[in-house]
Amino acid sequence: MYIKKQRLLTPGPTPLYPPALHAMMRSDMHHRTEDFRKVYRACLADLKEVMGTSNDLLMFAASGTGAMDASVSNLFSKGDKVIVCVAGKFGERWADIAKAYGLDANVISVPYGQVVKPEQVAAALQAEPATKGVFVQASETSTGSMHDVEAMGRAIAKTDAIFVVDAITGLGTMPLDIDGWGLDVVIGGSQKAFMVPPGLAFMSVSPKAWKLGETSNLPHYYFNLKKEKKSGDAGESSWTPATAMILALGEALVYVKQIGMAHLIKNAQMLAQATRAAAGKLGLEIFSAASPGSSVTAITAPAGMDSGVIVKEFRSRFGSIIANGQGSMKGQIFRIAHLGYFDFADLFAMIACLEIILNANGHPVQYGTGVAAAQEVYAQAAVKSLK
Amino acid sequence: MYIKKQRLLTPGPTPLYPPALHAMMRSDMHHRTEDFRKVYRACLADLKEVMGTSNDLLMFAASGTGAMDASVSNLFSKGDKVIVCVAGKFGERWADIAKAYGLDANVISVPYGQVVKPEQVAAALQAEPATKGVFVQASETSTGSMHDVEAMGRAIAKTDAIFVVDAITGLGTMPLDIDGWGLDVVIGGSQKAFMVPPGLAFMSVSPKAWKLGETSNLPHYYFNLKKEKKSGDAGESSWTPATAMILALGEALVYVKQIGMAHLIKNAQMLAQATRAAAGKLGLEIFSAASPGSSVTAITAPAGMDSGVIVKEFRSRFGSIIANGQGSMKGQIFRIAHLGYFDFADLFAMIACLEIILNANGHPVQYGTGVAAAQEVYAQAAVKSLK
Repeated sequence: MYIKKQRLLTPGPTPLYPPALHAMMRSDMHHRTEDFRKVYRACLADLKEVMGTSNDLLMFAASGTGAMDASVSNLFSKGDKVIVCVAGKFGERWADIAKAYGLDANVISVPYGQVVKPEQVAAALQAEPATKGVFVQASETSTGSMHDVEAMGRAIAKTDAIFVVDAITGLGTMPLDIDGWGLDVVIGGSQKAFMVPPGLAFMSVSPKAWKLGETSNLPHYYFNLKKEKKSGDAGESSWTPATAMILALGEALVYVKQIGMAHLIKNAQMLAQATRAAAGKLGLEIFSAASPGSSVTAITAPAGMDSGVIVKEFRSRFGSIIANGQGSMKGQIFRIAHLGYFDFADLFAMIACLEIILNANGHPVQYGTGVAAAQEVYAQAAVKSLK
Repeated sequence: MYIKKQRLLTPGPTPLYPPALHAMMRSDMHHRTEDFRKVYRACLADLKEVMGTSNDLLMFAASGTGAMDASVSNLFSKGDKVIVCVAGKFGERWADIAKAYGLDANVISVPYGQVVKPEQVAAALQAEPATKGVFVQASETSTGSMHDVEAMGRAIAKTDAIFVVDAITGLGTMPLDIDGWGLDVVIGGSQKAFMVPPGLAFMSVSPKAWKLGETSNLPHYYFNLKKEKKSGDAGESSWTPATAMILALGEALVYVKQIGMAHLIKNAQMLAQATRAAAGKLGLEIFSAASPGSSVTAITAPAGMDSGVIVKEFRSRFGSIIANGQGSMKGQIFRIAHLGYFDFADLFAMIACLEIILNANGHPVQYGTGVAAAQEVYAQAAVKSLK
């Protein structure tokens, strides 16, 4: 055995921002005190600021899926016609939630690695004018793709439907003009670009979404948007909040504001670009080449090699946790994350490790060539724009 | 601004082992209780075990220099003839301490980058049979060199002199057969290969050293070896111990035992070998080529480039702290550390960053070539011997 640092290099949980973890040590405070209200209010305000929206911002002690559930159970009614865009495992989750609550879903599915085109959404809206909502992933983490939510948003804004965007891995990895593009509900989670452990979900809610919610007839209790809005206005959460997590997120948001959301996004985009360049140099194909996102890059394993071997050897040789494909893509692809607290030094190391693993498993590459491609991207672009 | 992780890549403090840091949170305990005695006893026993010695082991709330001071003030007497080997800044410290306590020191100095040869020590011992002690650095951190303490020890063992070895960066980076080679006093510190923050010093003391100490007439109070031995036997420290630090060190020692001291040393040696290979490929010279150690590799900056530029750009571009030269070597060399909690992924990243910095500052290198040289060392040796 030799030294192998446990590096969390997955698209969630992501590498953690140390001062945010340290902040969790301050959680010997009571959540119904002014001390905590100050923290909670700052957290909500900072989230609104970095998300760049004037919409209401609500937070839950839940994983991101909790907020997805809340958006359906609070805003829609049984039998409502909706459009669900499915480009991967998380799109399927939207379809599952719609089904669980008895919505009448028109599911637009594309093969994994592809994305739903804005024109497909526009056509479906035209075909069914009674559509109440459209569900999509801004970034489909399972395939490394991103949707053109700007074009979708502009098409949806012209209708009565609301646009519900799972931006759990989209926030902080791609520009999202929530108010300008008509993104009525935008959902995020703590364990992604916001650099803290899982446990908090949050969502912005537009006036158009609130209006639809007024007629909602679906049962819900824990996830109560109206109640949560009222609580938040008073600097509290409706139920007992996850205080340690909120202290952590508050600290991470100070850092995100210091970097600037635009630079945080650019950081992920540069790392993604460098990863694609390295993969190309190493003779590997980008799985989501049609519309690659910057939260995570999904790479197809070389012919004849199970991607699980790459995942396993990252762990056994270098202590690093990287993501395999999910569901039917397991064994086919592996995924290198970029969202949040990742830097170029992380990426250089990861690519050097990947080269060693490829070489040792029947996909010969010349050492250093993938790293060099990433270094070129850093030298050409990052330094100028991000210094 | 973009994401730049603060990486501590210096030869002390070194990268910290996270579970050891977490253990500091347990320090709400009193040091005069059986709970703490258990921790303290385990720490002393584990240090003895990993150092592989049957000599007594003492610990102090102090930096390594404190234990260096203690070895002189407790074991020697005013006017004692001693030999001091000086191959860098830390050798000079031995000379300073000897002077401060009025010892009659024969200082054997060699130019920075060189090491004192065992034959020089043997000759000096022969020239002065009344010599009471020999002081040396196992690893001279300031120049990246290591001394042949085995050969020195064998020469000294034949005389009445005791051998006092500053192994602060030597422990865990080079084999040290304390009992077999006659290393009478061996000094270590917490912030080196033992992966925790600064604050603890420890030393092993041989029967020969204790015997010399019986006639010592130098004043001391806080650093009292005999008193500390008696306290340690009772599971305590003489004065208030640095409880949080001891909890951290205890946790790190569990990890060191798990890896095995031999593998910890091999880990540092492999990283040093890979670093030298990379430096060679990048057209850089190893400063301590005469006798390079594995705690840190000192590399001469390219002609016309101040090594401070490299140190500064590691910080400004990549958030990493690497070491400049010390004293007169400042600006001439930079130092890449290997001791303790360092792994190959760290090194690949560091070399990729170095290539970018060299390229951007007038020393053109081909991207990835230094990394490839390090990858080769990993592939050829590390996998076989260290998996």
